[in-house]
Amino acid sequence: MSFHPPKRTLMGPGPSDVDPRISLALARPTIGHLDPEFIRLMDEIKELLQFAFQTKNELTLPVSAPGSAGMEACFVNLIEANDSVIVCQNGVFGGRMKENVERLGAKAIMVEDQWGTATDIGKVKSAISANPDAKALAFVHAETSTGVRSDAATLCSLAAENDMLSIVDTVTGLGGIEVAVDDWTADAVYSGTQKCLSCVPGLSPVTFSPKAQNVITNRKTPVQSWFLDMNLVMGYWGQGTQRSYHHTAPVNALYALHEALTILKNEGLENSWAKHQRNHRALKAGLEAMGLELIVASENRLPQLNAVSIPDGVDETLVRSKLLNDYNLEIGAGLGQLSGKVWRIGLMGYASNASNVRLCLQALEAALLDQSVQISAGAAIAAANQSYLNA
Amino acid sequence: MSFHPPKRTLMGPGPSDVDPRISLALARPTIGHLDPEFIRLMDEIKELLQFAFQTKNELTLPVSAPGSAGMEACFVNLIEANDSVIVCQNGVFGGRMKENVERLGAKAIMVEDQWGTATDIGKVKSAISANPDAKALAFVHAETSTGVRSDAATLCSLAAENDMLSIVDTVTGLGGIEVAVDDWTADAVYSGTQKCLSCVPGLSPVTFSPKAQNVITNRKTPVQSWFLDMNLVMGYWGQGTQRSYHHTAPVNALYALHEALTILKNEGLENSWAKHQRNHRALKAGLEAMGLELIVASENRLPQLNAVSIPDGVDETLVRSKLLNDYNLEIGAGLGQLSGKVWRIGLMGYASNASNVRLCLQALEAALLDQSVQISAGAAIAAANQSYLNA
Repeated sequence: MSFHPPKRTLMGPGPSDVDPRISLALARPTIGHLDPEFIRLMDEIKELLQFAFQTKNELTLPVSAPGSAGMEACFVNLIEANDSVIVCQNGVFGGRMKENVERLGAKAIMVEDQWGTATDIGKVKSAISANPDAKALAFVHAETSTGVRSDAATLCSLAAENDMLSIVDTVTGLGGIEVAVDDWTADAVYSGTQKCLSCVPGLSPVTFSPKAQNVITNRKTPVQSWFLDMNLVMGYWGQGTQRSYHHTAPVNALYALHEALTILKNEGLENSWAKHQRNHRALKAGLEAMGLELIVASENRLPQLNAVSIPDGVDETLVRSKLLNDYNLEIGAGLGQLSGKVWRIGLMGYASNASNVRLCLQALEAALLDQSVQISAGAAIAAANQSYLNA
Repeated sequence: MSFHPPKRTLMGPGPSDVDPRISLALARPTIGHLDPEFIRLMDEIKELLQFAFQTKNELTLPVSAPGSAGMEACFVNLIEANDSVIVCQNGVFGGRMKENVERLGAKAIMVEDQWGTATDIGKVKSAISANPDAKALAFVHAETSTGVRSDAATLCSLAAENDMLSIVDTVTGLGGIEVAVDDWTADAVYSGTQKCLSCVPGLSPVTFSPKAQNVITNRKTPVQSWFLDMNLVMGYWGQGTQRSYHHTAPVNALYALHEALTILKNEGLENSWAKHQRNHRALKAGLEAMGLELIVASENRLPQLNAVSIPDGVDETLVRSKLLNDYNLEIGAGLGQLSGKVWRIGLMGYASNASNVRLCLQALEAALLDQSVQISAGAAIAAANQSYLNA
């Protein structure tokens, strides 16, 4: 029997709601991955990704697999056995970077910060001083497990000044906050399609600086993954009309990504960032009026992903079930050491809108009242509305 | 500007035409990858894949990336550095297996056969005798570059008798010809969605026997790919309702795969195989009436992928361009050492039908007449029609 999914509102850490224009694009007729029209599409996607990443990097393309594979693509191409890499961890995804480094037979030098705080610049400086031969500095720009933004510009500068490559996770960042690859002098940056791009999950946009590209073409050993080897992938996504077959591209997912990036371009990056800020402020006003607290300090907060402390005595699983069952509304649970301690409320891309802010506040209020949590009923929506009036 | 693909008829080596029912499924609203409804979908996909592969293997799931990643998943999970693997090559994809083995720091012992012929059982027996300590025997059941079927049942038996794991590529096989994983006693088998399943490209169904699963859980070293590590993937695709997050599943592509497998189940495996045979015979009759020859001996021919010798003096690129531009018809070029020597005409899944057979014969006839090749005009369609009457 065919599967008919319920119509959810997706306000978790991603996937986020897909723009219906993008769903339509996804369903268009499949063409061959070597069709001249498809090659033209690839060229346009590359240009649109350069726009979104704010880069001129030639090696800019979507990896044909989810964000985790984009992360892996950066590490397996740039790092070789016995290299060492300074890895900043302030949430789940820094830990995954460590895994990637170690599975390459390389050494991960960890810079650890409390989950919910940004990567500490001072600690990174010390780690660089203590490990001047490290090949790369890897960090998470937008930590999906905590809702924290770290200072990518400063971290990439530190790497560049010390002749290290920078590897940047901005899976949740792209389209929601500024990502300025060239201004940052970032060397390898990966993202996902299912967050602020409002596209379906399954692809991972990546970009490599000319310096990184040079490292990849001059490796001592082959890239350990054939599928993710950029030396081969470049032959398919490269310049000119002669593209050599590497793997079969996920054609329809790429239609969707093209549409998502076209929508972002038409909206404008600054407008998209401002939209994310506006809706974040309204949500925050509502949550605080309800007596709930965000765990991240305001200066490091991702507007697109709000980690909220779960009040004492609340059965958090029951709250999420109620939201899902009574409102078709998905919010995210905590991950790793924040499991059971926070909810993660996403306001990403197409799903970042006033109607979702109000839906979430109302549903959360009802679910908490249901558990006899003392909150001032009605205050949340009023505060959110006031925030929009002030915007 | 939005991208609007031309409406092609896809008769190359894949992607093949996507059934409109599957396109509709693809465009359904995205839900979260931990949504209870999505977990239910995953369970159904697993069952449907077990049906398609004819297996009871618990570890049966779609890898969240194209067939090349499915291949890599089999090798990186089962093989460790310094292992040796007997790899049978009779086309492009055996060569890719060799790449996979070598990038693992393992040794590939090659058994080479002429492209366009099946893997020679005698040679494999000799290789096994000469290398009794090899950990696995890897071969291509359905070689997409040549249209050859090798004897999977015998090859898997040889592996099992000699206490080796068998690793089987049936990217082009699944749904088009018999794939009997349990009867073969195959240990690791991978396929693709964009061939005889008529689904969009981007996923790779894989299945591992209990013996293979045991090898994976008892490795000496970690799997070198985090993304493809089945020890972790199992936690997400495993039993029970508690699924641990590994990576964000390509939700919409999985809707499409579910629909594709549902269609296959309703049609019945034997009916699907018979359909592929029937249309193959009609195409073959037409091609031969036109004076063209298939390069593969009839006993080893894949009905879903027909490699046709290009007659002397024909500008093959011009023929394919003409088909694409005048008929919106894609057929495949030769790959690797068969480049310029063959066309590959696919009749896969939804695209395996009489109307496509006739379209292709007519278009090819016109394109060849255009280049003044001596062919008996009209004979092809008559022969194909006669073949259908005899069926």
